[in-house]
Amino acid sequence: MNYDEKRGLLLKGEVIADLEHLRKLFIMPDSPDKFIEFGNELLNLIHSFFQDKGGIHSAISLPELAKIFSDTNLPKYPHLLKDVLSEIKSKVIAHSVKVGNPYYIGHMTSAIPYFMILLEMIIAALNQNQVKIETAKASSFVEREFIAWIHQLVFKRTDSFYKKNIQNYKIALGNITSDGTIGNLTGLLVARNKAFAANDRFPGIRKAGFYEAMRYYKYRKAVILVSRRGHYSIDKIARTIGIGQDNVIRVPVDSMNKIDIKALQQTMGEIKQFNDANDEKIKIISIVGIAGTTETGNIDDLVELKKAADETTSHFHVDAAWGGAVLLVDDYKYMLKGIERADSVTFDAHKLLYSPLSMGMVLFRNEKDLDNIKHSSSYVLRPDSVDQGRFTVEGSRPFSCLKPWATLKIMGTEGFRLLFGLAFKHTNTIKNLVDKHENFEAMSTPELFIFTYRFVPGEIKEKLNLLMSRIEQEPDKSGAARQKVRKINNMLNTLNVELHRYLREEDNSFVSRTRLESTRYYPQKVVVLRSVTVNPLTTDEIIKEIIDEQNTLGIRIYKLHFANNFLKLS
Amino acid sequence: MNYDEKRGLLLKGEVIADLEHLRKLFIMPDSPDKFIEFGNELLNLIHSFFQDKGGIHSAISLPELAKIFSDTNLPKYPHLLKDVLSEIKSKVIAHSVKVGNPYYIGHMTSAIPYFMILLEMIIAALNQNQVKIETAKASSFVEREFIAWIHQLVFKRTDSFYKKNIQNYKIALGNITSDGTIGNLTGLLVARNKAFAANDRFPGIRKAGFYEAMRYYKYRKAVILVSRRGHYSIDKIARTIGIGQDNVIRVPVDSMNKIDIKALQQTMGEIKQFNDANDEKIKIISIVGIAGTTETGNIDDLVELKKAADETTSHFHVDAAWGGAVLLVDDYKYMLKGIERADSVTFDAHKLLYSPLSMGMVLFRNEKDLDNIKHSSSYVLRPDSVDQGRFTVEGSRPFSCLKPWATLKIMGTEGFRLLFGLAFKHTNTIKNLVDKHENFEAMSTPELFIFTYRFVPGEIKEKLNLLMSRIEQEPDKSGAARQKVRKINNMLNTLNVELHRYLREEDNSFVSRTRLESTRYYPQKVVVLRSVTVNPLTTDEIIKEIIDEQNTLGIRIYKLHFANNFLKLS
Repeated sequence: MNYDEKRGLLLKGEVIADLEHLRKLFIMPDSPDKFIEFGNELLNLIHSFFQDKGGIHSAISLPELAKIFSDTNLPKYPHLLKDVLSEIKSKVIAHSVKVGNPYYIGHMTSAIPYFMILLEMIIAALNQNQVKIETAKASSFVEREFIAWIHQLVFKRTDSFYKKNIQNYKIALGNITSDGTIGNLTGLLVARNKAFAANDRFPGIRKAGFYEAMRYYKYRKAVILVSRRGHYSIDKIARTIGIGQDNVIRVPVDSMNKIDIKALQQTMGEIKQFNDANDEKIKIISIVGIAGTTETGNIDDLVELKKAADETTSHFHVDAAWGGAVLLVDDYKYMLKGIERADSVTFDAHKLLYSPLSMGMVLFRNEKDLDNIKHSSSYVLRPDSVDQGRFTVEGSRPFSCLKPWATLKIMGTEGFRLLFGLAFKHTNTIKNLVDKHENFEAMSTPELFIFTYRFVPGEIKEKLNLLMSRIEQEPDKSGAARQKVRKINNMLNTLNVELHRYLREEDNSFVSRTRLESTRYYPQKVVVLRSVTVNPLTTDEIIKEIIDEQNTLGIRIYKLHFANNFLKLS
Repeated sequence: MNYDEKRGLLLKGEVIADLEHLRKLFIMPDSPDKFIEFGNELLNLIHSFFQDKGGIHSAISLPELAKIFSDTNLPKYPHLLKDVLSEIKSKVIAHSVKVGNPYYIGHMTSAIPYFMILLEMIIAALNQNQVKIETAKASSFVEREFIAWIHQLVFKRTDSFYKKNIQNYKIALGNITSDGTIGNLTGLLVARNKAFAANDRFPGIRKAGFYEAMRYYKYRKAVILVSRRGHYSIDKIARTIGIGQDNVIRVPVDSMNKIDIKALQQTMGEIKQFNDANDEKIKIISIVGIAGTTETGNIDDLVELKKAADETTSHFHVDAAWGGAVLLVDDYKYMLKGIERADSVTFDAHKLLYSPLSMGMVLFRNEKDLDNIKHSSSYVLRPDSVDQGRFTVEGSRPFSCLKPWATLKIMGTEGFRLLFGLAFKHTNTIKNLVDKHENFEAMSTPELFIFTYRFVPGEIKEKLNLLMSRIEQEPDKSGAARQKVRKINNMLNTLNVELHRYLREEDNSFVSRTRLESTRYYPQKVVVLRSVTVNPLTTDEIIKEIIDEQNTLGIRIYKLHFANNFLKLS
């Protein structure tokens, strides 16, 4: 059997390619037993993968993993499905990150409901391509209904508006995208195209390109204004759509990690001054607000940002990839006040709508705004067509929206009220633990489920507090106190990086880390641990265990490597 | 039970939100029976969905579908999973397009192997986010191994190159993208950034933006050269990255739908002439070759295009989203000769690697080229990290590459040899049927599984042939013959649009349609039917049935609505 005429004996696991066998792979086997057998096996496997506590990252080192996946030869002969599945089990599943583990509270990627696996089965089996109606019939309508739902949450336009437009194929209220980055890209692309629109004498930036557009409109610079907490994708997008990273103006934030409105107004004033004095102006393409910063979960003052956008006649985009979902719950809507007046909003399903990776969205208050990137072609997307692909940056797209659409039905907004309530409670739990703990220091004030803090041995915290109150109370003329604080923080930075490394090695739990300039030690950048507490399987007890472990490890590392240095510093 | 204290009685299907119940949705139920029960039910459902012949699009009209999906109220109360699944069954699955049906030979979206459904289960359950190693451990390595495999197929660099780089996290040989459009975008973005690179005096286009870059480099225009058969995404990308659609120069094609090299050279000559005469130059950002045009499946002369790119020192990008996969089979490699010298290549998994929607890729011959879009941030993607996200246009990304990675193991390149062999045979079958048929006319010469043709009643075909040979043989001074041809073709265009509409209504089979200027009637645009014969479940008999039905319907429509007009024309 395992013998090829040309090559001779096959290797273990290889079989001869057989057309009839291959064709059968393309349909459900006549008796679905085999499929169910495999499905069963996979299910048990997935089940046990999630059952164990700890071992979040698997102990294997990256160089060892590199060795496993360094086969430079493409597989020539077929392998039996069961063999490949068992290879996936031992090589891939065993060494995956348990992002759904209740002790994994470090990233926005978290647990998903198990019915998502069923929905993915349906999506794959139907294999609809959302780009056009000929490859996506009911699914195009599900997509539009879902977009209208989220649009309504965000922009609260009138009932008659939604009745008219929920299935109006002549416009698009928004797009389903592969992720938040493409959502932000779409929003800012529309903003750019509106700023360089076509008129009687100019064909617009889409046709003429960036260079001609700047010349025609007599601009010297086209800029985007966003806070220092803005997602890195804003820079990436500026580089992509021709604006350039240097033209993303990063406005400082206040101690709540919200954009500093005074600093923003100062920037706007400087731009106005420049424009009054020069023929070639600076054009603000967009002011970007953040509803849930990636690092700290805080929300910009969207009402003030809208005013600023109006004042400068610029597009107002809100990146609500993280926080948008709390609009599902009436009690929390106030947190995102002003979002209803944004021009465009990014919203992710794979974050707080608990969908698996990945699905983003972008929504536009004005139902005509997406006309600014509308396109057509003769073989797909004829201009008079009903195809969703006329309005998207991407081309082929899967039927991802089935997942959040069904989730909303299965959970209801009432279900989200309970889940977010639990998440707020857990965020409070970790904040309280840190606030009361002698060896930790809170580094940001949580709003949307994200909290940053650091390990600071009690004796150092005392010292720091003393120094800081001295700096506040009397002018630190010599700068000696400040210099001391700086040195202590440098040491604490190293200590917390070390602690994070040790935690990764212990691998019982996971928080992430970042550096913030927006603490009371401004402008010094401080290393912080970052928790994201949205997994409904996490409990208060688990959070306490995590903090306890960090404390125990922190003390041990401090005594071993840092205590002596600290004495010298003091 | 179904009673809410505030609202009173709930509607049918609604239940009270219960936190413990919701939390249980987030784990595999302790006993997986329920999950398997649902899985079983879904499987049977999917099975029967694919069993029926015909009814490809479901009979329901678009306005009727619009009514079904026009609920402007978000679901407030939870619904039972089984109720939502049965809603999906009756409203969504029943009205989906059967793209896997063997009679559906109209688009590149086709049947998928059933094991893809198992792989999607794994991908969803693991929920890895490929953006960074902390959320994607083994899966990052699978991704790099898979990218190296395809890189090797395309660029055939040395064994030692792949041994060194298959898991070299310092570079990226390519990216997994959500689709071919983002693949092309990435390729052309790298091309753009290379053309406006940083140097001692200029920070590069990424920082300074498009406008400053043009000024610094003293360019008047930045253009992309691609044939008229190039995918519409090239225009979309030019609009996105600031080049502008007017600066996509669409070079005519020859009768084989390949880029006309003489016309290309003429364009290049004109640009050179302009550049010799002007201080502000025209810069060719990229020459784009196509390995499998979307409309006709033909392949540009990549060897000649590489020469042209060298001559103009421009980036050479090949859009092999459709055809790239034939490189898996040694016998077919010759078709894409020259691709190994491209700078970047787009390659789709959801086309000829038979993955479900959606996954694209882009590969770069030079392992340093992706440095031209590399980025970092302090909270993810630290510059010294091993994170894949440093090199991608997108941010969060799913573990899609598991699908083609496992497919290559399950099928082997030998399996693809058989599957593509079958697809070539089927393409030949439809071409032969059309060539020999009195009532059809071939409109393109197939290379990669795509064939275009049209319905032309025998008596008209005779007339057309007569007119065309007259035009060829003697100068048609008065233009009378040409005018007659034009009129007949206009009528045939209407006839074929009508035929296509009728076929959609009958709904037994599906081919798509487009308009081509590159036929013997050039430059008149001619409506053609378009078949894509890659579904391994399609058979010669099915193809014959499809052509027979088109003939029967075509004759009926012709007699009813067109025959009289044709007599008048003659």
